[in-house]
Parts: sequence; structure tokens; C-alpha cells
Amino acid sequence: MVIAKTIKHVRKIIFAAKQKNKTIGFVPTMGALHYGHLSLVRAARKNCDFVVVSIFINPTQFGPKEDFRKYPRQFNQDKRLLEIEKVDLVFYPSAAEMYLKDSSTYIKEVYLSEPLCGSTRPGHFRGVCTVVAKLFNIIEPDIAYFGQKDYQQARVVKRMVRDLNFPVKIKIFPTLRERSGLAMSSRNAYLDQKARGDALVLFESLKLAKKLVKEGERDPKKIINKIRKLIISIKNAKIDYVKIVDVENLRPVDKIKAKVAVVLAVYIGKIRLIDNVLVDANSN
Amino acid sequence: MVIAKTIKHVRKIIFAAKQKNKTIGFVPTMGALHYGHLSLVRAARKNCDFVVVSIFINPTQFGPKEDFRKYPRQFNQDKRLLEIEKVDLVFYPSAAEMYLKDSSTYIKEVYLSEPLCGSTRPGHFRGVCTVVAKLFNIIEPDIAYFGQKDYQQARVVKRMVRDLNFPVKIKIFPTLRERSGLAMSSRNAYLDQKARGDALVLFESLKLAKKLVKEGERDPKKIINKIRKLIISIKNAKIDYVKIVDVENLRPVDKIKAKVAVVLAVYIGKIRLIDNVLVDANSN
Repeated sequence: MVIAKTIKHVRKIIFAAKQKNKTIGFVPTMGALHYGHLSLVRAARKNCDFVVVSIFINPTQFGPKEDFRKYPRQFNQDKRLLEIEKVDLVFYPSAAEMYLKDSSTYIKEVYLSEPLCGSTRPGHFRGVCTVVAKLFNIIEPDIAYFGQKDYQQARVVKRMVRDLNFPVKIKIFPTLRERSGLAMSSRNAYLDQKARGDALVLFESLKLAKKLVKEGERDPKKIINKIRKLIISIKNAKIDYVKIVDVENLRPVDKIKAKVAVVLAVYIGKIRLIDNVLVDANSN
Repeated sequence: MVIAKTIKHVRKIIFAAKQKNKTIGFVPTMGALHYGHLSLVRAARKNCDFVVVSIFINPTQFGPKEDFRKYPRQFNQDKRLLEIEKVDLVFYPSAAEMYLKDSSTYIKEVYLSEPLCGSTRPGHFRGVCTVVAKLFNIIEPDIAYFGQKDYQQARVVKRMVRDLNFPVKIKIFPTLRERSGLAMSSRNAYLDQKARGDALVLFESLKLAKKLVKEGERDPKKIINKIRKLIISIKNAKIDYVKIVDVENLRPVDKIKAKVAVVLAVYIGKIRLIDNVLVDANSN
């Protein structure tokens, strides 16, 4: 496994792999890897000849009051995990390698980025789109892997790829969960024992939504109200948003007719967590 | 020479060329080809194994009151010219092929795009960056060729490529001129005999700037004033801008010390023409 810290080094290795006609699978990450990441790496390993993982905590996708500084960093552990997964190349650049001081170009997706996390985190998806495009241009993967836990992000990236014709196939893989139901996330490292218990309310909320739809409830407002009550019952929890949206346009639905996404963002103490589930009114 | 109207068709042909390890040279155009374009095609032909020319009048880089509708279209003539130049592939897509109705992603360069044409034509460079990125992602060229006549455009594209790490080398080639000195431009087709005479004032202005610097003038204001007087003396001419700017940051210089660009945009009747010249204080 090669660790490349410069774009030049990555390009050299990728060029050699492409010369051998190898297909490139790519998993972009911010490090602090968990099984969710590793499931993407395994999918890449299974489907591609050459697997690249990037570890880069992208400053431009964090707001000024967000957790960029304290975001978990554990490169040595990440490295060991990726070695076990037989990753070929880890791209681990500095911020200075990725962004020149006079960088002046960005990519903005303006429709799917607008609601949900986009409204709570202005500039977030602009940062995501820009860094993902840069990584695609550096690594030139055939397939890139994203997790469904960041549902809006996956959809925004897919839209960007479509609109700008990036020659990359985007694959989205299911959220992995801890035994308790808590969605795996690098930010779970922020949670103490008590907060981990409180954080279960996210998955409980999604299970509740699923159950209500299964029982025939088709009014999103009623489901959302019940979820809100459940979350509010946790003293340490504060709702950012709870929505039931169209899986395509990410806009709230009036009535649950087909496949919808139940999406939520909840603060547990100061830690903002997100989760989601897709629910199909017709197949429950 | 293959004419491809769909992205799928282009990708298929490019894939085959790349399989044969051919280097791809790319000249993006809006058609209505003149010798300026052809000089870029010849440079591509000389340096690359496989030459692609796109002909696409990109609607998103025209303002609502600009000349998108009447922009010259002469595909059959363009095709003949490109056949003579032994171009391998012409990409000639429709607007619907390039932009889906629900396209929602764009690329913005915010520093070099700001002054000059960027200030007169809001949204123009956003449209340019977005379409150029799309074309790069569709054609995946090794080298792309741009003309110096659109100096700001060439610089903005170069910056975008740098900032987003596009794996493309940008080459900029000198402006070609008619015998009269008029810079070649597809928009010259709008000019009648009288207007062609009036339009010579652009080149006369640039020659004047060059002469003044050669004679030792280092104050941009004095040069600009003389140019303005010259242009105003033409009844049918109206100045959009006349500037002497740093070749790197495109911002006005206080004093001409090294290499500067004299850039201007002038309306001849209703037709907006641009031209520029690079002047080096030390080598004149």
C-alpha cells in the first residue's frame, strides 16, 4: 500500500495503473475510519482492480463555527485498517497541497444542496462538490463509493457528476449501524456513554417512521409530529430538522405515495448527528 | 473525420483512441471558424495523435440581451475546413444534449473573472467555466488549445484547471489578424464594410499603446487617455473598457514596470469587439 501525500505522486501511480488497464475504485473519506467506510472499501476491492482511499479533512466544507479543528484524526489507525483491506493507494494530502492560497474556483450545485443540511450548513455542499471534483480530477476513478448515511451528499455528488459529465460512476452503499442501531459515523467518537444512549433516538425515530408507514399512515405531518415528540422527550437532544422528502428532489412530500426518505439531523448536546432511512409506501 | 452529436458517441470514440495510447488534443469552439481557430487546430494536429474540435454555441455564456440567437452558424463550411485540417473527431452537440432541463450545477471562478468582460457580462465566465469543464470531462483531452484574443477567458480557464486539478494542459496561442490588423473573430461577420473600417481602431489603439511604452511612457493613465481620445474620434465606436492590467491578476497597474496586458472592449455600432496585446516595458 502506497501512501501519497502529493498530487504529483498520486498521478504517477494512477498513470501506471491505468497503463496496465486497471479499473480504479475510489473511496473519499475524512479519515477516522469505521466499518461504514470499510464496507465501501470492500465494495471497491471487489469490483475494481486498483483501490484508492483519500483521507482529507476538507476545511472548505466546515462552517466557521463547526468542528473542523476537533474532527477526529487517527491516521496511523486508519492506515492499519486500510492495509488489512488491501487498499493499493492512500492519498493523504495536506490542506496546502489541496488548496493554493489564491484558489478562486468552486463548484456549486444549487437545487439538491438547498434544503436539509444545505440550509443548516451554508457553504457545506459547495465545499463538498469542489473537493470531490478535485479528487476525481486527481485520481480519475472509474467508480467512486459513497455512503447512504450522508444521503443528501450522495445525491448532490451524483447530480454534480451528471451535470458536469464527470467520467465516474457513483455507487451508494447502505448505512452501517452499531448493534444498538446507532448509524456509524466518525462523529460518534465525540459521544460519551450517556450521549451514545441519547443518540439512539435518531434510529428509534426512523424505526417509528417505518412502523407508522407500514401500519398505513400516509400523512408525513403526523409521522413527523410523533418523531418530534419522541426526540423532545430526550433532554439532551435538540432537533435541527426532521423531514420526509421525495427521494429524487429532496423536497417534502404532502402525502406518502411511493418511496420517500425520512431524514433527520439532531443535536445530542453539542454534537450534530444525521441519519436517514428510505421507506416505500408500496412495499411495506 | 467522425461527427459525433452525442456524448455517448464521443466517449466511445475517445475510449478507443485512448486504448491505442493516443494523446488527445482538443480545440473548443463555437463554430463560425476562422484562421484563428484553425491555427489552434494545426497546433493540436502537430502535437497530438488525435484531434477533437467541439462546435457548440453555449447558451449559458450569453447574457439575455446578447447575441446568442444571431451568433453566426455555418456548420457545413466549418466541417469542410476541419476535414482539410485532418481533424479526427468533431463534437457537435445540441443544447439539449449538453444541458438537461434540471441541470443545477455550475463552476465559478471568482477572482480573474471579476474585472473586464466579467464586469460587463455578468454570468459569462460562469457559463464558460461550466461548459469547458463539461467538455473536458466528456473528451478527456491531454492538451486543450485556447486563443489569446480572449485573453481573460484563457486565463480564467487556466485558473479553473489549476484550482480543480483538471488533468489537462492548457496552451494559449497568439491572436491571428487580418491583413488590416483586425483581430480575427467570428463576430467580425456582423460588420459591414464601413464598420470593418471603424473596427480598425481597436488594433490602432493597441499599436499606439505599444508605441508609447516603447518611447518610454510608463503611466497607464496617460496611455489610456490617448487611446480613449483615439476611439472617441470614431463616430460609430463606443468604449466598453480600456485597461492596462497585470498579466497575472488582470488588475490595473499604477505604473508599467514589467509585462502588462493592454485590453479593450469596444462597441462598433451594436457589435462588441475585444482585443488585447501584451507589452513588456523591459523588452521594448
